[in-house]
Amino acid sequence: MKKNWLQKPEWSWNQTEGQPTYVHHWVQPLDKFAESPDLILYGAPISRSSISVSGASLYPTEFRKMWKGYATYNLDEDIDLTSIRVGDAGDVAMHTTDILLSHRRIQESTQALAADYPNALTCMIGGDHSTTACAVRGVKDAHPEETIGILQLDTHLDVRDPAELGPANGTPIRQLIDGNAVKGENVINIGLHGYFNAKPLVDYAKEHKIQMVTLKQARKDGVVKTIQDALERLAKQVDRIYVTVDMDVLDISVAPGVPASTPGGLTAIELFDALLEIGKNTAVRHIDFVCLDPSKDTNVAETVKTGVYAWLQFVTGFACHSNQK
Amino acid sequence: MKKNWLQKPEWSWNQTEGQPTYVHHWVQPLDKFAESPDLILYGAPISRSSISVSGASLYPTEFRKMWKGYATYNLDEDIDLTSIRVGDAGDVAMHTTDILLSHRRIQESTQALAADYPNALTCMIGGDHSTTACAVRGVKDAHPEETIGILQLDTHLDVRDPAELGPANGTPIRQLIDGNAVKGENVINIGLHGYFNAKPLVDYAKEHKIQMVTLKQARKDGVVKTIQDALERLAKQVDRIYVTVDMDVLDISVAPGVPASTPGGLTAIELFDALLEIGKNTAVRHIDFVCLDPSKDTNVAETVKTGVYAWLQFVTGFACHSNQK
Amino acid sequence: MKKNWLQKPEWSWNQTEGQPTYVHHWVQPLDKFAESPDLILYGAPISRSSISVSGASLYPTEFRKMWKGYATYNLDEDIDLTSIRVGDAGDVAMHTTDILLSHRRIQESTQALAADYPNALTCMIGGDHSTTACAVRGVKDAHPEETIGILQLDTHLDVRDPAELGPANGTPIRQLIDGNAVKGENVINIGLHGYFNAKPLVDYAKEHKIQMVTLKQARKDGVVKTIQDALERLAKQVDRIYVTVDMDVLDISVAPGVPASTPGGLTAIELFDALLEIGKNTAVRHIDFVCLDPSKDTNVAETVKTGVYAWLQFVTGFACHSNQK
Amino acid sequence: MKKNWLQKPEWSWNQTEGQPTYVHHWVQPLDKFAESPDLILYGAPISRSSISVSGASLYPTEFRKMWKGYATYNLDEDIDLTSIRVGDAGDVAMHTTDILLSHRRIQESTQALAADYPNALTCMIGGDHSTTACAVRGVKDAHPEETIGILQLDTHLDVRDPAELGPANGTPIRQLIDGNAVKGENVINIGLHGYFNAKPLVDYAKEHKIQMVTLKQARKDGVVKTIQDALERLAKQVDRIYVTVDMDVLDISVAPGVPASTPGGLTAIELFDALLEIGKNTAVRHIDFVCLDPSKDTNVAETVKTGVYAWLQFVTGFACHSNQK
Amino acid sequence: MKKNWLQKPEWSWNQTEGQPTYVHHWVQPLDKFAESPDLILYGAPISRSSISVSGASLYPTEFRKMWKGYATYNLDEDIDLTSIRVGDAGDVAMHTTDILLSHRRIQESTQALAADYPNALTCMIGGDHSTTACAVRGVKDAHPEETIGILQLDTHLDVRDPAELGPANGTPIRQLIDGNAVKGENVINIGLHGYFNAKPLVDYAKEHKIQMVTLKQARKDGVVKTIQDALERLAKQVDRIYVTVDMDVLDISVAPGVPASTPGGLTAIELFDALLEIGKNTAVRHIDFVCLDPSKDTNVAETVKTGVYAWLQFVTGFACHSNQK
Amino acid sequence: MKKNWLQKPEWSWNQTEGQPTYVHHWVQPLDKFAESPDLILYGAPISRSSISVSGASLYPTEFRKMWKGYATYNLDEDIDLTSIRVGDAGDVAMHTTDILLSHRRIQESTQALAADYPNALTCMIGGDHSTTACAVRGVKDAHPEETIGILQLDTHLDVRDPAELGPANGTPIRQLIDGNAVKGENVINIGLHGYFNAKPLVDYAKEHKIQMVTLKQARKDGVVKTIQDALERLAKQVDRIYVTVDMDVLDISVAPGVPASTPGGLTAIELFDALLEIGKNTAVRHIDFVCLDPSKDTNVAETVKTGVYAWLQFVTGFACHSNQK
Repeated sequence: MKKNWLQKPEWSWNQTEGQPTYVHHWVQPLDKFAESPDLILYGAPISRSSISVSGASLYPTEFRKMWKGYATYNLDEDIDLTSIRVGDAGDVAMHTTDILLSHRRIQESTQALAADYPNALTCMIGGDHSTTACAVRGVKDAHPEETIGILQLDTHLDVRDPAELGPANGTPIRQLIDGNAVKGENVINIGLHGYFNAKPLVDYAKEHKIQMVTLKQARKDGVVKTIQDALERLAKQVDRIYVTVDMDVLDISVAPGVPASTPGGLTAIELFDALLEIGKNTAVRHIDFVCLDPSKDTNVAETVKTGVYAWLQFVTGFACHSNQK
Repeated sequence: MKKNWLQKPEWSWNQTEGQPTYVHHWVQPLDKFAESPDLILYGAPISRSSISVSGASLYPTEFRKMWKGYATYNLDEDIDLTSIRVGDAGDVAMHTTDILLSHRRIQESTQALAADYPNALTCMIGGDHSTTACAVRGVKDAHPEETIGILQLDTHLDVRDPAELGPANGTPIRQLIDGNAVKGENVINIGLHGYFNAKPLVDYAKEHKIQMVTLKQARKDGVVKTIQDALERLAKQVDRIYVTVDMDVLDISVAPGVPASTPGGLTAIELFDALLEIGKNTAVRHIDFVCLDPSKDTNVAETVKTGVYAWLQFVTGFACHSNQK
Repeated sequence: MKKNWLQKPEWSWNQTEGQPTYVHHWVQPLDKFAESPDLILYGAPISRSSISVSGASLYPTEFRKMWKGYATYNLDEDIDLTSIRVGDAGDVAMHTTDILLSHRRIQESTQALAADYPNALTCMIGGDHSTTACAVRGVKDAHPEETIGILQLDTHLDVRDPAELGPANGTPIRQLIDGNAVKGENVINIGLHGYFNAKPLVDYAKEHKIQMVTLKQARKDGVVKTIQDALERLAKQVDRIYVTVDMDVLDISVAPGVPASTPGGLTAIELFDALLEIGKNTAVRHIDFVCLDPSKDTNVAETVKTGVYAWLQFVTGFACHSNQK
Repeated sequence: MKKNWLQKPEWSWNQTEGQPTYVHHWVQPLDKFAESPDLILYGAPISRSSISVSGASLYPTEFRKMWKGYATYNLDEDIDLTSIRVGDAGDVAMHTTDILLSHRRIQESTQALAADYPNALTCMIGGDHSTTACAVRGVKDAHPEETIGILQLDTHLDVRDPAELGPANGTPIRQLIDGNAVKGENVINIGLHGYFNAKPLVDYAKEHKIQMVTLKQARKDGVVKTIQDALERLAKQVDRIYVTVDMDVLDISVAPGVPASTPGGLTAIELFDALLEIGKNTAVRHIDFVCLDPSKDTNVAETVKTGVYAWLQFVTGFACHSNQK
Repeated sequence: MKKNWLQKPEWSWNQTEGQPTYVHHWVQPLDKFAESPDLILYGAPISRSSISVSGASLYPTEFRKMWKGYATYNLDEDIDLTSIRVGDAGDVAMHTTDILLSHRRIQESTQALAADYPNALTCMIGGDHSTTACAVRGVKDAHPEETIGILQLDTHLDVRDPAELGPANGTPIRQLIDGNAVKGENVINIGLHGYFNAKPLVDYAKEHKIQMVTLKQARKDGVVKTIQDALERLAKQVDRIYVTVDMDVLDISVAPGVPASTPGGLTAIELFDALLEIGKNTAVRHIDFVCLDPSKDTNVAETVKTGVYAWLQFVTGFACHSNQK
Repeated sequence: MKKNWLQKPEWSWNQTEGQPTYVHHWVQPLDKFAESPDLILYGAPISRSSISVSGASLYPTEFRKMWKGYATYNLDEDIDLTSIRVGDAGDVAMHTTDILLSHRRIQESTQALAADYPNALTCMIGGDHSTTACAVRGVKDAHPEETIGILQLDTHLDVRDPAELGPANGTPIRQLIDGNAVKGENVINIGLHGYFNAKPLVDYAKEHKIQMVTLKQARKDGVVKTIQDALERLAKQVDRIYVTVDMDVLDISVAPGVPASTPGGLTAIELFDALLEIGKNTAVRHIDFVCLDPSKDTNVAETVKTGVYAWLQFVTGFACHSNQK
């Protein structure tokens, strides 16, 4: 593998005898795998690119700490996730003050993982939403000939102007469209609602044909059905789907640790159902979870716990369709 | 306009060039309008009339601070609120220790606004629920010949005895009924549930024919349908409808900043849907939002954010029917 | 009555003139009753038997403090609970360091109450979940000839191995099954979901024929319907039903004061509906509420308030069927 | 005794066998005493007279709850306080909305206690600082022929204009001076520092010859020495000394539960030493502790604990000189 | 070494190249040492033996996490601690529900360490204060022929009756005196103040000739001087000195994470100076730090940071006299 | 004035009639002054250059909000600050993602202010400590011929290597020394203590002859005396003195809102005395206050209040010597 800036995390993996029963016994360092695992996890711990003060850079570490509380067995689906092999590639090394350099490292690391493990899903744990632009470009670099589509679960369009802000957390989708990495019509945003996108941004989205599905509409049609339809539609338009989950899509009452979460957002249950569905779709090759700031979370870590659960739902979905093979 | 005690608030309006895109660019001081605006906003920052310690007096200021985070564009309804002209009349000046004097000023200020701007909706931001009695009397003073009906979204009946407590926050509806400003049968309370109204208060309500709709019943019939029916029924009985939203109608899990909120209350989504519907009804001429105590809110200001969203839903409803004209 | 270790609590009962309107006027010390009351309440304030640090021992006291905020009148069901006579037996005296001794006292006290007041329902306020094993054994001691069934509302199976942990809070159901107090097939667990039970524990449950109903399934069938069916089924299998409500069955967003609550759990409304139904079932003779740690609750005591509401729903259900008699 | 509005508090006194060892075993209800006790305690739970939102009305109840954690034995002085008889007269009944009426009741209750128990010290637990004006007037009513001096431990002069604010918490000293109850030269304020008194207020104080001792000066001379000198000086000028301790005299780092406390204030140790000295002075006949808002305190109740300690130091001082008699 | 129940902690030691500069590079696992280190650290993570709810069992882990923020270089004394070799023996394995068994393991582990490494200082990180009785008995078991003296920094005497409470956290000194492990006259308690020891406990202490030094007296004589004198006196009476630091000796304003800390306690600076002095004394062979509950600490972990600093001061003192050799 | 990137702040200045009595009436926008004011205030709201997550960028706004609570009159010194004219130049405009650009703007803005107002003191409100390097270079650019000395109140040396971290908050003093803007022997650091500077950093400081004064030494000699001596010594070595106050010099118990504050640090009183002395010294021409993160502060804003007080002490010192002229 080329130089890819990935560093061993403050590690929370523990070898155990026999069949692993908890997540920290099951997920293993990437370099422990002789062959490609099914899913590769890596962290992009940067949030100094955030418009407002953010501690989202702390999420990869807290995410791994919290997974000790989760069993590998899903009772609802009666499925044991240990059939899926998950490799943890560690965190991309971030520079203290050079944001552009840090962003390049995320792009290069994603490219390296996507190129070296073409059969594995990649899952990036942010960091703020600026990391998504880097990761998608990295995927594009690894597969330049393929068309990429984005399914975005988000309260915001994230199409603010990088010419004004630089590559900040409000700009990733616009970076990708303006930079020709992804076409606007290949972006579907589900979760928009209320008063959180200024009109000029909506105008940009319309002009570039971003497919906007409001939460109100999604609830009318059923959230799971909406996700299914969106993935099906997208799968016809593109070669591979990148899913980005901005955790601010969640309602503020279930995501106090996401500063940009809002009233009227997705419930945790809705997100869990959506991710189960997403995991089942074979066109989905990449996913990220961003913008969760553990330093703002409650004393019982409600939001980080929800974040781990969300990720496991995606893996469960993947396990469902893998097991059917 | 007669002396009405309204003072410039700690102001949060900012002039902007071109089309305003955020609430603080759109709402303007009342005295900037040559003609009557469509909606007039004013604060009644008193809560020393509250039975238990309350910081609801801080809400008008926090409400205006928080609206900077809200765009004027509503994505669900695909509507731009800037077509509605909103004038901010400031806050009623409160006396430090003379509660009755403060109450009179709220009454006189409301009368002045209702008389001088007969075509505008008024929207009062409390303060505790004692302010509603003052405001309704002010409306009555401005329109003595008209019959007033009240739609009350509230976990409580607020019919405790002013003879015992004075004009405290638990008494407004009883003040109005006993004072002949409003008849009991012209009051509809939606949101009652659980164990939060002692039997003698329910007996009073029954005796005075207050229409009580429990939350359980409202959910069975559909919250929006319940609101529609209530407004339709009330519109036939009265000349103008005053809506009072005691934020304690919300469930405690979505309204930690409302000390009297309870388990089993309205969800934020239900409240937002209700207010959209209320805004659409042309018989509704006055609204208030009371009992939100920002000093008890979470570190991410969940409840104040919900309060601003709720108000915008009302305005969106109003914009929907205005635009249809 | 035999020695039963019950002590007067930090008392919150206040005599009032005339008809009581609030819970603290209505519930009375057990020794005030000439005849058996309808329902007996007692606390089991122990949590040093908890695997992780817990302040659930503080719940009985906080539960009684908070009930002052609750009226005896239920608006949804239009029913006054004062028709039901509730006797408060106080708290079982706990030893500071001898956990086994404390457990024996809970067992003996439960036995004494169940034997001396055979027509009364018993309601135990924990304490951590280890107390349930003691209480069920106490019931068995009082009624050795009867078969006991358990309806468990819980996110966890609580069948960890007492051989390893001693009689800790993760083990009560296994203590009872292994100790032949209750058969596995007479245990129904509703509320299981997600990733919170390791596979070996699920294997134990399957082996012992514990009836597991996932929350996903319960929601598909309707939570109330699921409860009805479960109670009906159980009532055919056993002589008396003991209901144990581990408050960690609640979703973390509505139960921040239950350290083991999780994302994806029961909503408060679902729990309230379930308890109304449970109260209506005549085979239910005993209930407990455990694992709520007030020291972790929010500043507005959201979880303790939910706990009192939950208990009142059970009493309301009981009042509904009592009144029909 | 005349009607004096004193009500039984949420009581925290517990009879014990043998010699009492904790405060709640030692302090007894006033009506339990056949003869006059040495010290009478009473609460004045009002804070709606406060300029900014305050929960100081909650202090009397929290004060009594917290004293359970305090033994009656003082190790530093090797003295047992049980030799002093303390009677708790309960709390003055406050009206919900009529502040002037509440104030009159405090005045009348103080008058009644001072007249009926002329040999007992009185100790009032506020409440905000407006209560001090009432209490001093009550003392004056009981002893109209005597000259009263005030020793004030305070960061503020509290001489704002009642003509503007009414009898609010910033005005008590001015109320008393302008109302001829106390002369300015008979008021000594110790604890002033920094930037917390606007110049016009200092000008008023100078004009009325209030004796201002800055904290800087007090520390230079020694806090205890400063207190001794002040009391000695005052004792020569007046017939009886009333001490008012505004808890905002404390440094913000030791008094987070006093909203008006400031950086640079008195340390807890300095306050404890001062109160020991004050208790020893025989001219001191009355004391109050005001402006502590338990709802702002830390999760370990640091400020309320400090408040109880402070009161006990005063009692210890009194016990020292009583025992010498 | 005999079986001693010591387990590898959630480890926070990291090997580094070259000279270590931070604590986590410097402290090494005990089994890495070929010869005896100078100081052995071990954790006793139990607090279910605490009278009130306590999370002090979490301290050993938090203590080791936090030391990453501390350099090995002390600027005040211009000394590098890396000259001292510190071995971390891990934590004593605790049973979930059998408190007596857990206590025996602490005793046996201490005995093993004291016997196997006779030239090393031992330093135990609690846990609640019940652990001190176990550790002192363990030392006694290892050195049965020697007389042990105790220097106790504590707000409390901790001589409550084990006959009533079992071996709880309020009883260790009495356990040792009544059990003839230590004589009362060989115990010196420094830090007593205020109202935190009931008179019967003081009577016990006097009867058994415990040397009580109040904080007031210590401050009069100088805290460092008081410590020096106490150690000198004790060194003449006994063969080896065991120092126990109950962190509740600290003032509540600097130790919010110690639930039993009180107003009027030791400042952090005073504690740091005392520990530097203690470290310098060659008769001191054992030390422990107990009763710090990280779950109660502030969001910036003020108390845990103070705890690490305190321990480093002891090591610095030891390094000072070692280097002089 | 040249382009200097200074923007109007969220303004908190209010014109008042007559003599100003509060800080927000007294401090005026810089452009209101016809002649140079005596002191110029400006904000440098950047903290994305901080090694760990920091909200110090929020301090300038919170600083100005909080000063409304401060009178212009200092009681200790009996001095009215309104004799000093203070101009607020606003905040330097920061770029969202380009840290180097933001730093250049701070440098240029400082240069512009220092050049255009040569007779005024400048006072910068940070931001993190990286801003100090920018500001000192700006002063050097304005006065290239003068030698600059630095008095640093800090727990840390801040000489980490910019080659590794870029111009982050741990590096400013090293940037200046390595960049030849300031000589090591012209830097005096007061406040160092404990274990917060790794040995290699101390070695760098010694090598470059930075004058290190430990807090222990300062306390032995007297903090004020230490400051006097340092300024006197420095004044002989250099042409102008720049004072940088890293608020982490404060003890963690008085500065919870400074994440890098430590146990054993400066008390607030010591800092206030030091700043009074610093203000009196005529060689001091520039000062900054950095590293206070309001988002970490307590609910009563203890640290921000301390920050405003600290600044006012500096102004008071300046007023003392100005008035003597």
